[in-house]
Parts: sequence; structure tokens; C-alpha cells
Amino acid sequence: MPSYNAPIRDMQFLLDDVLQVDRFDNLPGFSDAPKDVRDAIMTEAAKFAEEVLQPLNRVGDLHGCTRAEDGSVTTPPGFKEAYEQFVEAQWGALSGDPEYGGQGLPAIVNLCAIEMLAAANQAWAMYPGLTHGAYAAIHAGGSEEQKRTYLPKLATCEWGGTMNLTEPQCGTDLGLIRTKAVPQGDGAYKISGQKIWISSGEHDMAENIVHLVLARIEGGPEGVKGISLFIVPKFLVNEDGSLGARNAVTCGGLEEKMGIHGNSTCVMNYDGATGFLVGEEHKGLRTMFVMMNEARLGVGLQGLAISEVAYQNAVAFAKDRLQSRALREDQQHKDKPADPIIVHPDVRRMLMDTKAFNEGARAFAYWTGLHGDLLQRSPDEKVREKAGDYMALMTPVVKAFLTEFGSRGCNDALQVFGGSGYVEEWGMSQFVRDIRIALIYEGTNGVQALDLVGRKLAMNGARPLMSFFAEIDEFIAENSSSDDLKPFIDGLADARKRLDAGTQWLMNNGLANPNEAGAASTDYLRLFGYTAFALMWAMMAKAAYAKLAEGVDDETFYRNKIATGRYFIDRMLPETAVHLTKIEAGAESMMALEAEAF
Amino acid sequence: MPSYNAPIRDMQFLLDDVLQVDRFDNLPGFSDAPKDVRDAIMTEAAKFAEEVLQPLNRVGDLHGCTRAEDGSVTTPPGFKEAYEQFVEAQWGALSGDPEYGGQGLPAIVNLCAIEMLAAANQAWAMYPGLTHGAYAAIHAGGSEEQKRTYLPKLATCEWGGTMNLTEPQCGTDLGLIRTKAVPQGDGAYKISGQKIWISSGEHDMAENIVHLVLARIEGGPEGVKGISLFIVPKFLVNEDGSLGARNAVTCGGLEEKMGIHGNSTCVMNYDGATGFLVGEEHKGLRTMFVMMNEARLGVGLQGLAISEVAYQNAVAFAKDRLQSRALREDQQHKDKPADPIIVHPDVRRMLMDTKAFNEGARAFAYWTGLHGDLLQRSPDEKVREKAGDYMALMTPVVKAFLTEFGSRGCNDALQVFGGSGYVEEWGMSQFVRDIRIALIYEGTNGVQALDLVGRKLAMNGARPLMSFFAEIDEFIAENSSSDDLKPFIDGLADARKRLDAGTQWLMNNGLANPNEAGAASTDYLRLFGYTAFALMWAMMAKAAYAKLAEGVDDETFYRNKIATGRYFIDRMLPETAVHLTKIEAGAESMMALEAEAF
Repeated sequence: MPSYNAPIRDMQFLLDDVLQVDRFDNLPGFSDAPKDVRDAIMTEAAKFAEEVLQPLNRVGDLHGCTRAEDGSVTTPPGFKEAYEQFVEAQWGALSGDPEYGGQGLPAIVNLCAIEMLAAANQAWAMYPGLTHGAYAAIHAGGSEEQKRTYLPKLATCEWGGTMNLTEPQCGTDLGLIRTKAVPQGDGAYKISGQKIWISSGEHDMAENIVHLVLARIEGGPEGVKGISLFIVPKFLVNEDGSLGARNAVTCGGLEEKMGIHGNSTCVMNYDGATGFLVGEEHKGLRTMFVMMNEARLGVGLQGLAISEVAYQNAVAFAKDRLQSRALREDQQHKDKPADPIIVHPDVRRMLMDTKAFNEGARAFAYWTGLHGDLLQRSPDEKVREKAGDYMALMTPVVKAFLTEFGSRGCNDALQVFGGSGYVEEWGMSQFVRDIRIALIYEGTNGVQALDLVGRKLAMNGARPLMSFFAEIDEFIAENSSSDDLKPFIDGLADARKRLDAGTQWLMNNGLANPNEAGAASTDYLRLFGYTAFALMWAMMAKAAYAKLAEGVDDETFYRNKIATGRYFIDRMLPETAVHLTKIEAGAESMMALEAEAF
Repeated sequence: MPSYNAPIRDMQFLLDDVLQVDRFDNLPGFSDAPKDVRDAIMTEAAKFAEEVLQPLNRVGDLHGCTRAEDGSVTTPPGFKEAYEQFVEAQWGALSGDPEYGGQGLPAIVNLCAIEMLAAANQAWAMYPGLTHGAYAAIHAGGSEEQKRTYLPKLATCEWGGTMNLTEPQCGTDLGLIRTKAVPQGDGAYKISGQKIWISSGEHDMAENIVHLVLARIEGGPEGVKGISLFIVPKFLVNEDGSLGARNAVTCGGLEEKMGIHGNSTCVMNYDGATGFLVGEEHKGLRTMFVMMNEARLGVGLQGLAISEVAYQNAVAFAKDRLQSRALREDQQHKDKPADPIIVHPDVRRMLMDTKAFNEGARAFAYWTGLHGDLLQRSPDEKVREKAGDYMALMTPVVKAFLTEFGSRGCNDALQVFGGSGYVEEWGMSQFVRDIRIALIYEGTNGVQALDLVGRKLAMNGARPLMSFFAEIDEFIAENSSSDDLKPFIDGLADARKRLDAGTQWLMNNGLANPNEAGAASTDYLRLFGYTAFALMWAMMAKAAYAKLAEGVDDETFYRNKIATGRYFIDRMLPETAVHLTKIEAGAESMMALEAEAF
């Protein structure tokens, strides 16, 4: 059975030393989260994740969810009790708006907790995860009355939340939505249609479920310009806040999936269900994208989280399993029948790849998350502008890069186990199966890449990308005289140059023939991800050297951090070269064949 | 439900035009397999694979195998009936030795059939696959009596075969084997111990199962020098060939695995079972490696086979699924609500990656297989020497490179399906889960890489590698004046230069510090694989241009082949650069951390 130890020390390093969140204690919420408070939150969240959620992870995989004939869904044994504890402890409300049931702490503090929940039990963590997204969407687009009605209960997760986009004929292309909304004259609508793949769509853990549903108001424009967003609660809410009539929305079936068995993936049937318009008619996508962007960052974090827990278990196995001798005689443990496999370079390769990825990914996700806080809380317009730009630019990269390499990390961790990795009992298969969905949901990774090259690069006159380059250039200029940081600065400068070249190539070719942009998109996103990681590792190395210069007790921690960063620079960052080569190879050979030739 | 269409046309192209197997019709067996015979075999094998085995693939996944209390194992519904048909049609005997029940056809003809069986039903195909390996091992190392007793029944698969190496404490490191063999004075031994993860270890399809078991004869030397190989039949065989007493070998349990549920992966308990020594005492590994090398090629072929069937289904989905508009207006299907997703460059990228991999992989596997035939059948010592060198050198590359990229192909195929890929019903998850074992069994891919850099490069004074370089150089020299082939020749020459540089680096650094060789091993194997594929694509392009020059009816086939090869050169072969960079990065940062730091 796998275990999980929340990487609190690494999280502290990021918040305290690298991102130095104490700098922002003039902002709302930050002053309520000084180091001792943050540490206490992390410790408690870790306890809940490690001791309550993690032991339920395999239970969820084995039992899955079951649907009764009346459409009610039972979650795996123990899920409901864990959820009650979660609601009781108000974990869901950490970073919510204090006006509407939240505790107002910075989102970056919440991120640490969310990573832990996902690592311990991805399927379970999706229930509060989607609720958090529903909170954000109603907070962004709902009326004051809607906020008062729904947000406090969503904040604590007493009520669950879901997002309903997909229909059988409509996945990526939301213009194809057929679900209908008919106005009832009293401000309410009747919603009819079928939604599929609705995560947490129906379950037995929350007393109510607030569905956010995209639908087309009768007579509205075709395509994406006629899509509106509705709140469709499972139980209608009376004026006094108590629960009223059961709404006409039911779970019509559960999907048999490769993984995340503990999460109920539902077919949801809307049979004239009562819904309430969020924001303006026909402009529902804008608000749904608030939820989607929240969810995309959350999915990226899942990539990191599962890679982390898979890695931890691979390390434990690699230290324990004795097999073959170290290649160098001076590294052999002659007193044992064989050496622990962690002595073998190729095992190290897999562990180091994953370790260096995980730590870079955590820095990138938290750094992005901090900009989310600045966007919400900074009084400085310039800071908010840059933060908004960054959130837009980084979101597809966090989602796709972290899930793609997180999935690879899980696969490498399984590989370290050899044959045992393939046996379900050891739990590594579940990590690989669970995380596989993260490359798909909330927009496939290919869609993220198109979002990056097709929308995010050009937005606001390319200002987001220019800000990113400027930040890199500034970092390089500030630290170019440091001998310690030289390899990191050199690596970062190389990557930046390649990203610039890739961008230029896109500008020169993508406008004339959009297939060129499409053909380059995934390689461009990867090139971007590596470059962002290079900045993260340079920042981490700088912080680590600064701590060492200060004189600290746990020198080893900082030295190991730097050594891990060097591995990233030496052995992972060179991938940027091949991605640039592929971008510059163009679309011709990719698009050469007729469809019939496949 | 997925479907499968055996890629006969591609197989014909390889056998007829690229490898031109008719050149060898002076060799035993080849004269019995002219084009019309080969084509007829392929057509019949395709029918069996497509119509009988493929429909059982999901059945096997859903039902798995079941073990009764007495240790007997029942295979999934339909498996036994398919197996009977297989035995009846003598499919197993195609390339066996005519002296011992075989039909004597070239192994390369058999390869086509094996690819089809694996693609249609990997779990099922493992039963005859391991039997084939057992045949090869007894053929190579058994006494005349043993051959007469076992081979004819193994040839037809009336009896099954297994290989028993792994024990709980002993996987890669066979020196740790504890299973004991005690001589009985009558030439027989009593075998006692537990073997785990024995594929096809016990089942209800064959009337007898011939276990090939590694064990330690009491009093023999420690480590790998004291390991002997035994035949341990499930039922002892009487002198007249009839079945005698049930032997003391039983299945003690079945593993719950990530995939290949239709194959029985058994714990095998040997409780003083009667066994018969194969070859000399303490020299069992040598013969077992005959079986292992057979099996390694077979596993590589699985990588290709599952990638092929997954690709075919992804193509069908990509042509059928309408979602979003083509980026270029002139490629939009205005009469439909959206365009088939095969118009999208990033979907093309995944399909082309997999197509170019599959076709290169097939060429590489068959080209290697042809050398297996030459090794067995050529009267020319020089030819046999080179063929033996190639088999040794290429086996780890075929095994690891084809399974790693085959697994990637399956994952890309799943990704093309989007959310449907994650739903078990569509079958893509099964391909990903089934093929995952291929990176592990018969020696993990990391072990293959070590075998390549640690043993195969240096063997016979580096003669195998020198032959390979010489063959590449000859091809380049012969074709350097062809304008058509220029991109292929340039790509091949680049890759060759990098492989040479990687080899030099290994020679200069790996001897002084073997960790340098270990740290470079996986990247070296990938660099080698890409280079071999570059040669294959150059050969295929040459053959295709030659056919076009001849004037053929199906020009499109050959033009598409060339276009696919161009994609390989443009967009896949550049990976060689980064693998060389990683090799040259050395072991330092990979080995920098203490074990405690992970």
C-alpha cells in the first residue's frame, strides 16, 4: 500500500524563501497568514491528507461509485465520513471571500492544502475541487442574491458544485451545445438536455449540489454567441435558505473509467429543471471560463500532486529493494545479498527526472497562484495588470505541462517498481490510471496549446509574453555576476533565446497559415514550460544560495535543492532545442497526407 | 468497441520490396514461401486475428482468469475455443524445425502472423508466444530425447510452455535464485521453490504445460554460476508420449494486474516436482537466454502491434468525430456542424508520430527478424556471423525502443479520443494498460539499455556495432547521388554522426567510471533506436521510389510511404540531438545526491 508524506518543507521553502510571501503582508488576507499560521495550516492539512484521505485512495479505486435505480449515487466506503470531517474543519473555506463564508486567506496558502488533498486522493479531492470552482464562478458572475444564497454553503462544501459543459456531440466545441433553456417569465428558466462526463455530478456527501450548466436560451443566436450559464440546484433553495423541492435533474448513469473510480462521473439528465441565469443572457461562457481557469490550475496541480506521491513511493521502493550490484565497486553494499536499486544510475535517472520536475512544477504552480492573489488583492493597478496577464498566459502551460510530465513521472515511478509496479496491490498502477484523465479534462492538452499560441500570445498586444521576457531579462541582469548562479543563468538565457526564436517563427508563419501555428502549438507549449521551469529553478537556486550565505542549520536541504536544479539544467532543459527544431520544421510534413492515407 | 485490420499491405511492402526476401530463395524454407504463399498465410492469419481473437480482447479484459481452490485456472470465455482453432490450423508450427513438428517456413513470415495475433489480443497471444519461446530453448539446449518428447507438441501448441525465472527476492538479478533442485540419481531432479509472475503459468487451454525453470542444484556454486535449467512438465510424459502422473507443480495464486487480464499471471509453487536438466549443470542461463531473446523480440513486436491497433482506432475516431472548425477556412466542411478532428494539426501530430513510429518499428523488427533467419539458415559463415552479431546488438533496442514508443503511441491514440479515451467501453484504456507491461517484462527497458551499453557494444571487439556503421555508410555512399533520397540520406548521416559521437563518449568515459555508462544508457539506446529507424526509413523510401520509377498502379501507397518518412525525418529524428546532449552531460548531476536526499 502506498503512503504519502506532504512535502511541507518544500512548500515552506517556496512560500518563505523563494516567493517570500511575507512581502505582501500589506494586502488583505496576507497579514492573517504569517509564517506560523501558514505552517500550522500546512501541518493540519497534511495530517488530514495523510491519515484520512490517503488510506481511502485504494478503497475508492476498488469500490468505485454505485448508482441506484432512482439515480442516487453512493460514494466508496469512508468517503462520506472524510467529507464530513472536511466540512467540519472548514478546509474548503480557507481562501474564500469573507463576505461570503470564506476565511479570506491568500489562495497560495490554499494551494498547498489542495496539492495535499489531490496527492492523497485525487478522486475524493475532485468533489471539493469542483465546488471551489463553482464558488469562483458565482462569485465572479452571480447576482448579489445568488451570492448570498449559494456561496456560504459552497465555501464550506456543505453543498457541492459541478460544471456542466459536455454533451455527447459537444466537447471542445461549445458552440455545439444543444441543452435548452426556456424562460418561465418569473426570472427562472426550464433547462432540458443531457450533459455527460460530469465529475461529482451526483453523490451522497453533500446535502445539496449546485450545478453550473451551459445551455442555449430558446431563440438566441447560434454557436458560442448564444450560450448562457445557469445555476441548477439539485434541491431548490427557499427564501430562508432551507432546502425546498427536488429539482428535475438526475444522474442517468455512471461511466466506467480507466481511473478516478472514487469520483462519480455522471450522465446528467435535465428534464425541465429549474435554472437561474448567471450574468447576462448569451454571455455565459465568460463566467464559465472563470470556473474553467480555476479548474485548469487545479488540474495542473493534480499532475504535480500525483507525480509527487508516486515519486515518494518509488523512492521508498528503490531504497528497499535489493537487486544486482552497483556498477562501481566502491558503492556496493557487500554485507547485503545485493544493492538497493537506488544505486543504479538508470533508476536515479527516473527518480531525478521526477524529483526535478516535481519541484520545478510546484514552484511554477505556486508562483502562478501568487499572481492570482495579486490580481485579486493588490491595490496597484500595474501589479494587477501584470498579474492578470500572467494568469491568462500561464494557465494553459500549468495545465498541460504539469499534467503531461506528471503523467510521465507516475509512469517512471511505476517503472522503478519493475513487475511490482504492474500489480494493482502496490498502487502504482492506480496513480498512472488516475492521472491519465488530467491530460484530457478541462480542455485537452492540445486545446491548451492552441489556447496559448492562438489566444494568449497575442492578447493585449502581446503584453503578457513581453512581461515574461522582461522578468527573465531582469533576473538575468541582476544575477549575471554571480558565479554560483552561472549555470542557472546560462541555462535560462539559452531557453529564453529559444523561446524567443520559437515566438518569432510563430509570428512570421502562423498568421499567414494558421496550420503552422497549430502544428507548432504543442512543441511551443513545451518550450514555454521548460523556459518557465528554468526561471523557477534559477529563483530557487538563488534563494538557496542566499540561505546558505546567511548560515542555516539545515544546509543539506539547500545544497540538495541546488543539486536538483543542476540536474534540471544539465539533463532536462536541453529538451528546448528539439522543441524549437520541431516548431521550425513547420506544418508541411505534418499535413502532407490526405485523410484517406491514415 | 475497437476493431483491427491487419496491415497486410505494409507487411507486403516490407517483405517484397524493402527486404526483398525472394533474394533468399536458395535458403531452406524460403523456397517454400514465395510471394503467393506468404500472401495466403497473411490473409488467413489476418482473418483469424480480426475475426476470432480481436472480439475476445475486451472479453479477456473484463473477465480475466479465475483460479479454483485446487489451483486450476480458467481462462476468459472464448479463449479456449480460439486456442483450439489455433492448434487445429497449426499456426504455432509455421516456422518450427521440420525435424520436430515444424513447417520450416522463415521466421519472418511467422513474424507477420505474430504481430497480428498480438495486435488483436495481446493477453491471448502470450499463451502461444511463450510456448514458441519454450520450443526455441529446448531446440537450442535440449537432448535429442527431450526434443523428440516435447518439441512436436510445443510446435503445434497442443502443449503450452512457460519460462520460470522470477522469485519474490529475485527479478533482474538471477544470481539470487533460491529454487532448489535435488538430483534423484535416475537423471531426474526434485524441484522445490516458488516462482512468481509466471505468464500463462496455469490454464485450461492446453493438455499439458511444459515449464522451463531456473533452479540451483544443491551444492552448486553461488550466484549466476550455479543456475541450471529444467523442464518441469505439468503432466509427466510416458515413454510412448502419452501423459502420465500429475507433477507437483501448482498455481498458488493469480496476480491482479493493470492489464493483460486475459493472461494468467501465476504464482507457481514447486513442491518437489520432477524436473529434467536441460544441457549442462550450472549452465542453465545460456539456454534460458535463447528463450529470453526470443521473448524480447516478441515483446518489442507487442509494442508495435498494440500501437498499430490503437492507432487504427484513433484514425477511425478522428475521421468520424466532428468538433471545432479547421484552422484554415479552405479546409472547413461547411456542410457539417463542425469538422472531423483529423483536420486539426495537433491531432495530425499525434497520428503522424504514431504512424511514422509504427511503420519504422515494423521495418526494424522484420529486418532484425530476417537476420534471425539468416543466422539459422545461411550456408555462408560471414553472413551468419553478421546475423548473429546483429541479433545480439538489436535485440535490446527492439525490445526497449519499440515498447517505449509503442506505449507512447497507445497514449497518443487514447488522447485523440479525448474524454472517450478515458472511458473503458471505447477500448483505448485497455491498450494503454495492456502494453504498459511490455516496458517491464523480459528485462525492464533500463536493463535492456544496460545490456546494450554494457555487453553488446563491446562484444566481439565491437564488431556488431562496426558492422552496423558500415552498413549505414554503404547505404549512404550508394545513394548519395539521389536527389529523391537526399533528405533521408542527410537525416541518416546526421543520426549516424551523433550515434558515433555518443559511442565515442561512452568509450572515453564508461570504462573509467561505469556509472557514466549507466547514466548514459537509456539515452544511448534511444539514440541508437532513432538511428536504426533512420536507416529503415531510408531503405523504405528507396524501395518506394524504385516502385514509382517502375510504374505501379497504387502510386498513392508509395507516395504516402515517402511522405510519412519525411515526417519522421523532419519531426522525430531531431530527437537524436537531445539524447546526445544528455549522454554528454555525464553522470555527475544524476548521481550527486545521497540516497537520503530523495
